[in-house]
Amino acid sequence: MGEIQRHIYQDVLLEGHLIDSNILSRIMGNVMELGGDFEFLTLDIGRQNTDPSRVRMRVFGKSADHMQQMLARLTSLGASPEDLQDAQLAPSPADGVFPENFYSTTNLVTAVHLEGQWRTVPNAEMDLGLRYNPATGEVRGVAISDARKGDLFVVGNQGLRVTQQERPREIADFEFMNSTASSEKPKAQVIRQVANILREVKAAEEAVIVVCGPAIVHTGASEDLARLVRGGYVSVLFGGNAVATHDVERALYGTSLGIDMQTGLPVPGGHEHHLRAINRIRLAGSLMAAVEQGVVSEGLMHALVTNNVPFVLAGSIRDDGPLPDVITDTVVAQEAMRPWCQKAGACLMLSTMLHSIATGNMLPAAVTTVCVDINPAVVTKLSDRGSFQTIGIITDVGLFLKQLADELNC
Amino acid sequence: MGEIQRHIYQDVLLEGHLIDSNILSRIMGNVMELGGDFEFLTLDIGRQNTDPSRVRMRVFGKSADHMQQMLARLTSLGASPEDLQDAQLAPSPADGVFPENFYSTTNLVTAVHLEGQWRTVPNAEMDLGLRYNPATGEVRGVAISDARKGDLFVVGNQGLRVTQQERPREIADFEFMNSTASSEKPKAQVIRQVANILREVKAAEEAVIVVCGPAIVHTGASEDLARLVRGGYVSVLFGGNAVATHDVERALYGTSLGIDMQTGLPVPGGHEHHLRAINRIRLAGSLMAAVEQGVVSEGLMHALVTNNVPFVLAGSIRDDGPLPDVITDTVVAQEAMRPWCQKAGACLMLSTMLHSIATGNMLPAAVTTVCVDINPAVVTKLSDRGSFQTIGIITDVGLFLKQLADELNC
Amino acid sequence: MGEIQRHIYQDVLLEGHLIDSNILSRIMGNVMELGGDFEFLTLDIGRQNTDPSRVRMRVFGKSADHMQQMLARLTSLGASPEDLQDAQLAPSPADGVFPENFYSTTNLVTAVHLEGQWRTVPNAEMDLGLRYNPATGEVRGVAISDARKGDLFVVGNQGLRVTQQERPREIADFEFMNSTASSEKPKAQVIRQVANILREVKAAEEAVIVVCGPAIVHTGASEDLARLVRGGYVSVLFGGNAVATHDVERALYGTSLGIDMQTGLPVPGGHEHHLRAINRIRLAGSLMAAVEQGVVSEGLMHALVTNNVPFVLAGSIRDDGPLPDVITDTVVAQEAMRPWCQKAGACLMLSTMLHSIATGNMLPAAVTTVCVDINPAVVTKLSDRGSFQTIGIITDVGLFLKQLADELNC
Amino acid sequence: MGEIQRHIYQDVLLEGHLIDSNILSRIMGNVMELGGDFEFLTLDIGRQNTDPSRVRMRVFGKSADHMQQMLARLTSLGASPEDLQDAQLAPSPADGVFPENFYSTTNLVTAVHLEGQWRTVPNAEMDLGLRYNPATGEVRGVAISDARKGDLFVVGNQGLRVTQQERPREIADFEFMNSTASSEKPKAQVIRQVANILREVKAAEEAVIVVCGPAIVHTGASEDLARLVRGGYVSVLFGGNAVATHDVERALYGTSLGIDMQTGLPVPGGHEHHLRAINRIRLAGSLMAAVEQGVVSEGLMHALVTNNVPFVLAGSIRDDGPLPDVITDTVVAQEAMRPWCQKAGACLMLSTMLHSIATGNMLPAAVTTVCVDINPAVVTKLSDRGSFQTIGIITDVGLFLKQLADELNC
Repeated sequence: MGEIQRHIYQDVLLEGHLIDSNILSRIMGNVMELGGDFEFLTLDIGRQNTDPSRVRMRVFGKSADHMQQMLARLTSLGASPEDLQDAQLAPSPADGVFPENFYSTTNLVTAVHLEGQWRTVPNAEMDLGLRYNPATGEVRGVAISDARKGDLFVVGNQGLRVTQQERPREIADFEFMNSTASSEKPKAQVIRQVANILREVKAAEEAVIVVCGPAIVHTGASEDLARLVRGGYVSVLFGGNAVATHDVERALYGTSLGIDMQTGLPVPGGHEHHLRAINRIRLAGSLMAAVEQGVVSEGLMHALVTNNVPFVLAGSIRDDGPLPDVITDTVVAQEAMRPWCQKAGACLMLSTMLHSIATGNMLPAAVTTVCVDINPAVVTKLSDRGSFQTIGIITDVGLFLKQLADELNC
Repeated sequence: MGEIQRHIYQDVLLEGHLIDSNILSRIMGNVMELGGDFEFLTLDIGRQNTDPSRVRMRVFGKSADHMQQMLARLTSLGASPEDLQDAQLAPSPADGVFPENFYSTTNLVTAVHLEGQWRTVPNAEMDLGLRYNPATGEVRGVAISDARKGDLFVVGNQGLRVTQQERPREIADFEFMNSTASSEKPKAQVIRQVANILREVKAAEEAVIVVCGPAIVHTGASEDLARLVRGGYVSVLFGGNAVATHDVERALYGTSLGIDMQTGLPVPGGHEHHLRAINRIRLAGSLMAAVEQGVVSEGLMHALVTNNVPFVLAGSIRDDGPLPDVITDTVVAQEAMRPWCQKAGACLMLSTMLHSIATGNMLPAAVTTVCVDINPAVVTKLSDRGSFQTIGIITDVGLFLKQLADELNC
Repeated sequence: MGEIQRHIYQDVLLEGHLIDSNILSRIMGNVMELGGDFEFLTLDIGRQNTDPSRVRMRVFGKSADHMQQMLARLTSLGASPEDLQDAQLAPSPADGVFPENFYSTTNLVTAVHLEGQWRTVPNAEMDLGLRYNPATGEVRGVAISDARKGDLFVVGNQGLRVTQQERPREIADFEFMNSTASSEKPKAQVIRQVANILREVKAAEEAVIVVCGPAIVHTGASEDLARLVRGGYVSVLFGGNAVATHDVERALYGTSLGIDMQTGLPVPGGHEHHLRAINRIRLAGSLMAAVEQGVVSEGLMHALVTNNVPFVLAGSIRDDGPLPDVITDTVVAQEAMRPWCQKAGACLMLSTMLHSIATGNMLPAAVTTVCVDINPAVVTKLSDRGSFQTIGIITDVGLFLKQLADELNC
Repeated sequence: MGEIQRHIYQDVLLEGHLIDSNILSRIMGNVMELGGDFEFLTLDIGRQNTDPSRVRMRVFGKSADHMQQMLARLTSLGASPEDLQDAQLAPSPADGVFPENFYSTTNLVTAVHLEGQWRTVPNAEMDLGLRYNPATGEVRGVAISDARKGDLFVVGNQGLRVTQQERPREIADFEFMNSTASSEKPKAQVIRQVANILREVKAAEEAVIVVCGPAIVHTGASEDLARLVRGGYVSVLFGGNAVATHDVERALYGTSLGIDMQTGLPVPGGHEHHLRAINRIRLAGSLMAAVEQGVVSEGLMHALVTNNVPFVLAGSIRDDGPLPDVITDTVVAQEAMRPWCQKAGACLMLSTMLHSIATGNMLPAAVTTVCVDINPAVVTKLSDRGSFQTIGIITDVGLFLKQLADELNC
C-alpha cells in the first residue's frame, strides 16, 4: 500500500472524557492498526478527573483512499474532521436496494451534517441505511427492505458524527463482555497460528509444556500428540493418572474407557480394561519399566519414554489405582511441575480443566499459553483465576491435534 | 473367531421380573452381540405383572474362551450358570498388584460362591478386587493399592452373582440418562461412519438433505461443504439468510461476520460487509442471477447454483435484509421443505439448532439423521422434541467437514 | 379413578421381535403406568433369536375411557386390538382447524383402518392430522394450516396401526439418546422431590453425603448449605481446598475469589484474600482451631464445626496453600471417604465434577445420588464413568440451595 | 471512609507507552474507583506514536491507610512513588505460614527495592510470598508450604515494582478474554440489581421489553413472569409461537411439552397437547378471543391480555400450527417490533437466543439490556453480533424469575 505521505493528512478534533474512557488510546490504536501515523497538535488533558479533555490530532496516510478509510473508523469512534464537509448522498438504484457504498448504521446515536448543519438521526438501530428527505430535512434510519428507488441515502463516511455509548459503570465491571473465546472462528487459520508459536518456541530452544487430559485418548488424538513428541515439540508433559492409564489401555487392549478405538463401540468387559492396564504397569514397576520390558509398545507414554521426554503425573482424588508413576501427594506434585513453568516458552493446555488451572497457577504471565477445549467454560475459568494471558480455542481436541500435527509435518 | 459349536454350551438360569425390567431382552441382546446363540429351555413368564418369571436358557458359543467371555457378561446381568462352581482364586504377585485376570467389581451387590456357599461382599464399590480371607470366610472388595503380596483374589467370572439395581421408578422417567452424545469419542471412526452413510444413501439414489447454519462459514468449513456438493453428496440444502449471506460475504470480501478468513482478525469496517453483500445480491435480483452475472464466483452458494443443487432459505426474525432468495413467510418455507423430507434417505444437520429442529419436525423417523454441533444441548433438544432417531456428534463442524470431505475423496 | 374392573378388557395382539426389541416390556410398563392390568393369553416366544414372537394379551381397565386411553398408547407401540374396528372420522369445523379429539401423528409409518381395510399413510411426519379422501380412499397427513372446513379427519385412536422404528443397531450403542438431563424442567417440582429424598434418608437415620465445590460459595449458596447443616440434613461434607478456603475468605473478608458478596463487584486486592485466609488458618493450626479461637465465626465450615458434622477435604493439584485440614495425598483422602460411601442413604453432589466423580467411584449403586450442576456435561461424565444411578439436575446451584433450604424449612 | 484530604497525597511517576497501552486510563480509573482523586503535575505525552510518555501525577487520599491501599494498586499497574522507600520485611511466625500482611505475588515480572536497590524476583508465579535472603541479597517467590519460621518476607506494598505484561498483539484481538459472563457470581446480588433496573425504568415511565422463549414455561417460571406483568414491569412481550403455545398448553392441560407441571413426569399422550392447544386457539380465532371466551383462564398470555399488555409473536421455521396471533412473515414481524425498540428503557431477554438476537439487532445501544440464560454461549453470541451493551447473567431462568418477582414484591 506504499509509504506514509506527510502531505496526505487530516486534522481531527476530539472532545470529552478521552482518557478515562479509553477513547484516545483506541483512536491511536486504530490509526496504527490501519497503517497510518499521527502527531498531536494540541493536547489539553483535564488536570482533574472531572475536566473534559480536548485534543487536536494530525493523522497521516498513504493515499486519499487510505485517509478515507481511516476517517471512516475515526468518525465511528467520535472524532470529527476539522474542515467539516457535508455528508454525501446517492439515490437508491432499485426498490429494496441501497446505493453502492451506503453508510451502514451502528446502534449508537448518530448525527449527519447536511446543508451546513448537524441533523441527529431519531432512531438508533444497527445495519440500516440513512435516508435523507430534502423536503423535511429529516435523516432517518431505514431497513434495506424499505428502501425505494430514487430515495437519497448517505454514502461514504464524510459528515457523520457518532456518539460513543458510555457503559453503566457499576455493573460494567462484573458482567460486561468485550470479546470472548468463541467456537465460531476460522479454524485452519487458528491452527496455523498455534503451529507458528510452537515453531518459534522450539527455534528459541525454550521449553514447551503440554498439559493434557484423557479426552485426547478417548477422541483418538493421543497418536497425533505422540507425533508432536517425536517431532520435538513437547519438552515435558503434565497430566494425571487418567491420560496415562487410558493411553496404556489403548496400547494393550485397543480401547479407551472400554470403547474400541477402531469401531467406536463398547467392547465386552471393556470397563475393566483401565484397571487391568493399571495392574500391568504396577506389576512392571513403572511406565518406563513397562516400555523397557516390552509390555507397552505404542502410544503417547511410549513415545515420551522412547524420546526421553519427561512427564509429571499428578494424583487426583478420582484416580483408580493409581499408576506407580503418579505423584499422589499434590504438594509434592506441584514441586515437580514448578521448575518447568519458569523455563517455559509456551504452554499448550489440552482438554483438562484441573491440570490446566494447576499449571496456570504456576506460569509466569509472559509464557504464551494456549488452551484448547470443546467447553467454553474451561477457558473462562482459567481466565477468571488470573491466567489472563490465555489464548482460548474452542474446538474438538480430537480433530485439532491431527491437523496441528499435519501442519507441523510431524 | 469361527462358527458356533452346538456342543459348546452352558445352561443358565434367570429369575425375577425379567420382562418389565428388560433383563431378558438385555441378556438376549448381549448373547447376540458377542456372537453367540441361544434357545429357551423353559420360559415361565408371569401371567400377571406381579408374578416373577423364571427362564432357563441354553447359550451356545464358538469355543471355551468365547463361552467364558459370554458368561462373564451374563453373570454381571444377573444370570447364574446352572452347574454352579466355586469362584477361582489366585494370589497377588506383589504388594499393590492384583493377580492377572482378577475380577473387577461393579458398584452392585455381589456374591461369591466359595467352598460351596454364597458369600455376599459387604462393600459395593466399582473397580476393586475381591479378596478372600480363608480364615474368616469373608470376601471383601479391596482397592488395588491395598492388595498385599500373597492375598487371595477372585479371578475369572465363575461362581459370581451380581444383583441388578432397580431404578427408583418415579424419578427415573424424568432425569435418568442411559447414554448420551458425548464429545469424548474416537473421531476418526465417527467420521468414517458418517461417510459410509452418505455413500450408501447416494448409491441408493435417495436424497441427502444438508441443513446448515452460518457457523460453517465462520469456521471456514463452507468450502469443504462445497466439496461435498461437487462430489454429489448433497441433494438439497436447507438453511437461512445467515449462512447464504456470510458465504457471499466471504466470496466478495474474504470475511465472515467481518473476520478475515485468512488472518482470523477483524478487518476495518468488516461488520458492514454482510449488509453490503446482501445489497449486492438484492441488486442482482437473486443468488442465481448473481452467479450468472459473475458477481459471486466462489463459495458454497456458487457451488449449489453451478451444480444445480436446489436450496431452501427460510426467513427468521433475526435476519438482516434478507437476501431475495429467502422465503420470509415461515409457513410457506415449511411447505417448500416438506416434500424433500419425504424422499430423503439421510439428513445431515450442521451447527444450527433452529433449522435442525424445523427439519426434524418434518422428517420421517426412518430417515437416518446425523446432527453435528459443538454444543451438546442442541442434540438434547432435538431428541427431546421427538426426533429420537438422531445420531448426535459433538464436535467442531469446522474441522469435521474437512475430514469428512477428505474421507469421501471429494 | 377407581378400581380395575375385570369385565372391562380388550384383547390385543403383538407380533414380531418383541423381546429383543423391548416392545413387550414397554407395553407391560405402559399398562402399569396407566393404572391398568394385564394377563397373557398366549405367549409364543421364539425359541431362537431369529424366530419372531406372537403374544396375545388381555388388558384390564377401570372404565371405557380408561381403556380407550390405554389402547391409544398400546396402538402407538404396535399392538393391535383383536376385534378390529374402523377408525373414526369427523369434519373440520373451520379452515385451519382440526376437529376436536383429532389424531395427532408421529413420525413413524402409520396405517389407518377404514371401510374394512388398512390404508398406509404415504407421508410420515409428526404433529399432522390424518385427512381421509372418500373419493380416492387415500389417507394423508396434513398440516393444521392446510385443513379446510369440512375435510374429514381421523379422531380418537381406534383403527390405527403404528410401526415402531428399529434403530440402526451398529451406531445405536454409542450415540443414541433416549432421554437426558435437561435444564428445561419444572424446577419447583424437582426441588420438592430432592427435599423428600433428604427427609426420607434422615428419617431412616442413614447418612447424607454432600459433595461440593467452590461455586456454592461464589454464588452465595454456602449460607443456604449451612442451613441444611444446621437442619441435620448433612452427615458429612466432601470437598476440596477451594470450597473451604473461599468459605473462610467470605467469613473473614466478605468476598469470594475477591468478589464482594454484597455488591457483586471485585474489591481492591481481593484476589489476594484467599491466600490471606489460608495463611490465617495455617497460623491457627486447623479449621476447628480457627473456629474455637474465634478467627472464623460464620459460614459453612463454621456450621460444620459447631454442629459436629465431619468433613473430608481432599487435595488437588490446583490448590494454593493448602489449608492444614486438606489431605494432600489423594490415596489417603480416598481412604477417608470410602467408609462414608458404604453407609450412605443419599449423596448430593453440588457443582464439582472432580469430587463428584471421585465420590461416584466409591458409591454403591443403591445410594440415591443427585447431581446438581449448571453444566450438563458434568452429569454426562458422571454417568459415562459408571455412576448410572445419578439423577441429574441442570440448574444454578446458587438459587437451587436457597429454595431447597426453604422447602425443608431450615 | 470520610473526605479526601488535600494534604494526604503521594506523587507518582509513570513512564512508557501510557496511552496506547491504556495504562494511563487504567490508573485514572483505579484512583477514582478507590475513592481517591488526582491531578497531573507534568504530562509529557509522546507527540508521535513511537515516543514514550512521561507523566507525574499527584494522588490524593482520605487517610494514610487509604493512600496505602491506592499505592498498592497503582504499584501493581506500574506506577512508582517518587520518594522511593525500601520494601518492608517481617519474619514468618511459624513453619508453613507467612507473616500477616504479606505481599502476595502476581504472575508478572516483579522487582523489590531493598537496601537501596532494585532486586528482580527471578521466578514469576502467582500467589507466592517474597522471601529475602540477607546473606545473598536475593528475593525469591516461595510457596506458603515452603515458608520456614523466621524467614523474612516482604509485607505491605512499599518498594515494589511490577511490570505489566504486553499482550501478543496479532492474536490478542481475536481470542483474548478480559472478563466474561460467568455462572459463578453471587446471585442474590445480581437479582437485586436487575430489580433496581426495572424499578428505575418503570419510575421513568419508559418501556420494558421482555423477550422470552418457551423454557420459561417448561421450567415453571411463566407464572412468575405473569406476576411481573401484573406488577406493571412489562410493557410489551416479544416471543414466538412456542412460548405462547406451551403457556396455553399449561393453562389447558397442566403440562408443558407434555410434562406434567405438578409431578415433573410425562403424561400419556402429552406430546400431543401442544397441537391440541394450538387447535383450540385457532378455533377461537385468537388468544384474546380465547381469553374472552373463557377458553384460557390463567397463565402468562392470559395475564398479558387481561392487563392490556401487547405482545408480538414472530413466526419461525420450526413452528407447529402456528397460533393465529403469530406473524408468520418475518419482515412484517420485525416491523411490529421495531417501534418498541426505539422507546424502550430496558430489555430483559429470557432464555431465547433467536428472539434475543433479533431484538438486539434493533435496540439502540443506550437501552439497558439484560440477558438471562443457562447457556453462556447465548450471551457470547449476542455480544459478538454487536449488542455489546448486554449484561449477561448465566443462571436458571426458572429459579431466577421467582426470586426476581419476590424481590419486586409482585
